[in-house]
Amino acid sequence: MSALTESAAWRALAAHQRRMATASLRELFAADPGRAAAFTLEFGEVLLDYSKHLADAETLRLLVALAEQADVRGWIRRMYAGEPINETEGRAVLHVALRADAAVFPEGRDVMPLVRAARERMRRFVDDAHRGALTGATGERITDVVNLGIGGSDLGPRMATRALRRFRAPGAPRVHFVANIDPADLEAALEGLAPARTLFVVASKTFTTAETLDNAARARGWLESGLGGAAALGRHFAAVTANDAGASALGVAPERIFPMWDWVGGRYSLWSAVGLPVALSIGMERFEELLEGARAMDAHFHTAPPARNLPVLMALLEIWYVDFFDARSRVVLPYGEDLRDFPAYLQQLEMESNGKRVDRAGRPVDYATAPVVWGASGTPSQHSFHQMLHQGTEPVPADFIVFGDRRGGPAHAALVANALAQSAALMEGDRAGEPHRALPGNRPSSVIVLERLDPEALGQLIALYEHKVFVEGVVWNINSFDQWGVEMGKRVARTLLPRLLRGGDDAGLDASTRALLARLRGR
Amino acid sequence: MSALTESAAWRALAAHQRRMATASLRELFAADPGRAAAFTLEFGEVLLDYSKHLADAETLRLLVALAEQADVRGWIRRMYAGEPINETEGRAVLHVALRADAAVFPEGRDVMPLVRAARERMRRFVDDAHRGALTGATGERITDVVNLGIGGSDLGPRMATRALRRFRAPGAPRVHFVANIDPADLEAALEGLAPARTLFVVASKTFTTAETLDNAARARGWLESGLGGAAALGRHFAAVTANDAGASALGVAPERIFPMWDWVGGRYSLWSAVGLPVALSIGMERFEELLEGARAMDAHFHTAPPARNLPVLMALLEIWYVDFFDARSRVVLPYGEDLRDFPAYLQQLEMESNGKRVDRAGRPVDYATAPVVWGASGTPSQHSFHQMLHQGTEPVPADFIVFGDRRGGPAHAALVANALAQSAALMEGDRAGEPHRALPGNRPSSVIVLERLDPEALGQLIALYEHKVFVEGVVWNINSFDQWGVEMGKRVARTLLPRLLRGGDDAGLDASTRALLARLRGR
Repeated sequence: MSALTESAAWRALAAHQRRMATASLRELFAADPGRAAAFTLEFGEVLLDYSKHLADAETLRLLVALAEQADVRGWIRRMYAGEPINETEGRAVLHVALRADAAVFPEGRDVMPLVRAARERMRRFVDDAHRGALTGATGERITDVVNLGIGGSDLGPRMATRALRRFRAPGAPRVHFVANIDPADLEAALEGLAPARTLFVVASKTFTTAETLDNAARARGWLESGLGGAAALGRHFAAVTANDAGASALGVAPERIFPMWDWVGGRYSLWSAVGLPVALSIGMERFEELLEGARAMDAHFHTAPPARNLPVLMALLEIWYVDFFDARSRVVLPYGEDLRDFPAYLQQLEMESNGKRVDRAGRPVDYATAPVVWGASGTPSQHSFHQMLHQGTEPVPADFIVFGDRRGGPAHAALVANALAQSAALMEGDRAGEPHRALPGNRPSSVIVLERLDPEALGQLIALYEHKVFVEGVVWNINSFDQWGVEMGKRVARTLLPRLLRGGDDAGLDASTRALLARLRGR
Repeated sequence: MSALTESAAWRALAAHQRRMATASLRELFAADPGRAAAFTLEFGEVLLDYSKHLADAETLRLLVALAEQADVRGWIRRMYAGEPINETEGRAVLHVALRADAAVFPEGRDVMPLVRAARERMRRFVDDAHRGALTGATGERITDVVNLGIGGSDLGPRMATRALRRFRAPGAPRVHFVANIDPADLEAALEGLAPARTLFVVASKTFTTAETLDNAARARGWLESGLGGAAALGRHFAAVTANDAGASALGVAPERIFPMWDWVGGRYSLWSAVGLPVALSIGMERFEELLEGARAMDAHFHTAPPARNLPVLMALLEIWYVDFFDARSRVVLPYGEDLRDFPAYLQQLEMESNGKRVDRAGRPVDYATAPVVWGASGTPSQHSFHQMLHQGTEPVPADFIVFGDRRGGPAHAALVANALAQSAALMEGDRAGEPHRALPGNRPSSVIVLERLDPEALGQLIALYEHKVFVEGVVWNINSFDQWGVEMGKRVARTLLPRLLRGGDDAGLDASTRALLARLRGR
């Protein structure tokens, strides 16, 4: 048994769960006419209705006690203080600094001057692009930007650029995203693009990421074929990296190398120059509204008491299902096509942060951590996997995300009606009719209303989930900010690659991998 | 207890599982030098390596006994005989007829003449498009096709069109897909398209699907704005439907209305005229190669003994994990960007088919059915959620899909090396180093090698998963071919929509939905 599962707060929850295991959502509502209002929390542009969860006032009291026991407030303070809470890498965790407006980090490292300087350089670059001053080797204006990055250098900017499609600035280039080492990815993105008018943003903290560097080399080849090798190809590249020398070696001019820092993890880096593609699409003013939105949520997270703190509440409800109801996944359903990439973004944010099995002291945990996060945009999801949500054998807690914008008319109303209907049907079920038509109901979901899908509100939404992940990590006593689990795979891939290309020694490999290698080896 | 869980085959598996629960994949390999070969099965362009599963010869023997007990062979025969095995809807299940080359259906309904006639009409339409004879209201050639459909009328053709991107035929239009009722979806797809050169394919079996009809109306508005209301807008539409009258009402000419039939479910309809966008992209000859591939897998499925039958084996392994190891999800990882939409396609195929909780007699089941299916293309997935696959607390069985094409050189080798490395690392784990670096290993995965990503091989791969789903349904004793679970949500949405637009009576709604409606109602 771990200290956590033996703790008073945990044991109280386990005892309480035995009662709630048979609770009925309908009865919880019947017992408390004020439930819908009491179980709704609002901050800024975000409203969370968590009334359709298998929780009552006592559940919340016990969950908050768990948060207090885990010293969530202390950990928030330590993060803001710039302490090295990413212990396995000995690093601070300062993505909140990327959207801060004041130096608040003691420990002798006020990073705000760095942040502000980078933002100013982004602004000049973006403004140049929008007024047509960003030109390629032939002097033609840049009309298309292709972001070459993977993981955190891809998922965040990709999601936000699509989400803010309606805010594309006058004169803004079109922005495309390429992540996969498979050349088909770049090839498809370049269809219809003109080398003379295309700029590549190469985003990699180390500037050694195989996928990104391979794509940069291919991009260079494409430019050379189109423009000739003697052309000033450097004018078609910018870089976002902590490795200036690497970017220089690719021919990127120093003024086009934007910084990354070791106190920001990839999956938390959207707010830095990694967000350059977003800023190129919507302009720097709008990009700063995104930062402002996040900053507002930071302030709420920093100061609101746990029971009225959106990220804390969402984290506690996740822990309630994962650790006490044995839920193994959560489905995320944005009802708005422009937010369609949000589930993929959350997959990295949540599963890479909290998919861990040893605690901060290195002991294996005896409780479940990050569940599988999956989802797709509604309404298409309804015509795909909702069958299983309603009538499958496994209840899956759901996050419905809808937009409050009332100017959308019937089309917007249709989205909202569908989202609310799905959430209601999951809870209410359907006892009528033949057995194959019946829905068991009593399946939990949150409804998150985002007042509008604009930069400020999106910033709040993303920061909400970032902090939720942080709180979960604190309670689970794991380090949410490393990702050691991906290292061994990289190492093995490095040893397999030459064997695939040139054959050779297969010693030390398992028999399955040996057989597959023999089968797949270039002949 | 159900008949299934009380059955001899099930109880034998449960007893066997208690031994296998502590089995080590490494030790299974060590104990049997021939394991990699013995646990590999090949048919056509598909190789399945299932050696890295927590199964030995006895496991397989017991699983096959379960399939025999469930009369999988009898059910296959009944499907092929055209019996109404979709009992809750009283329908036959004849998607295999869509790719058949001979009338093999007794019961007095040889559907092949219908199928062949539809295929010939598709051929003429596609050939016209490719030779420039398909023109719009102004006489300009159609260069872009937008498919308006959702669920089965979207996910299959979308996935296959992207997968076969390299096979785009000379003269073929570009094909786009729009599913969501959110106007942002259509809006984004139409960016840069010219009304005079754009054709819409409206795909809906009933021609009453709200999303698709709304998008068709919007498309009509877009065409009218661009071409004038008096133009012959019917030249910009085709339809795929079982409701000819509905399509005619939209102004679609009879010769452009392609059929759907009640003996093919939406998620199994790619092979019918629902595949029109695929055929428009790759040409009818290539589309028929897709059918031929599926037909080859059909023959294998129909005739191979269970222990050497690819779909049967994959189904049994899924059942093994879901029902005996309590796995709740499976991750699908295609290592090839062109197959990136395959996980989303499988989500519908698997979860809509088998996300059921009552058996064929209407009794609630006491075992788990369809797990959550999720995934994304590798290598980007490695930089997102693989952390959780390697070091999370929840083991997730994985399907790695790689391509055997050896002409791809280093780029292809990099994809293969990464896929094999991930599969190997999941199994081998890593005991060295500090605890936070260690991987527990012993996590199962399949490696599926598809010899090439071409129409024929893709047809085999899709049919493989279709039949896998069927076998699971047979063993679980559920009807894989209805989807009643989505009906209530539709009903509730229909009652909420007018209340959102016009306010009014909220009686009968739960308090949460009432509060959200009040909040979100148009002011």
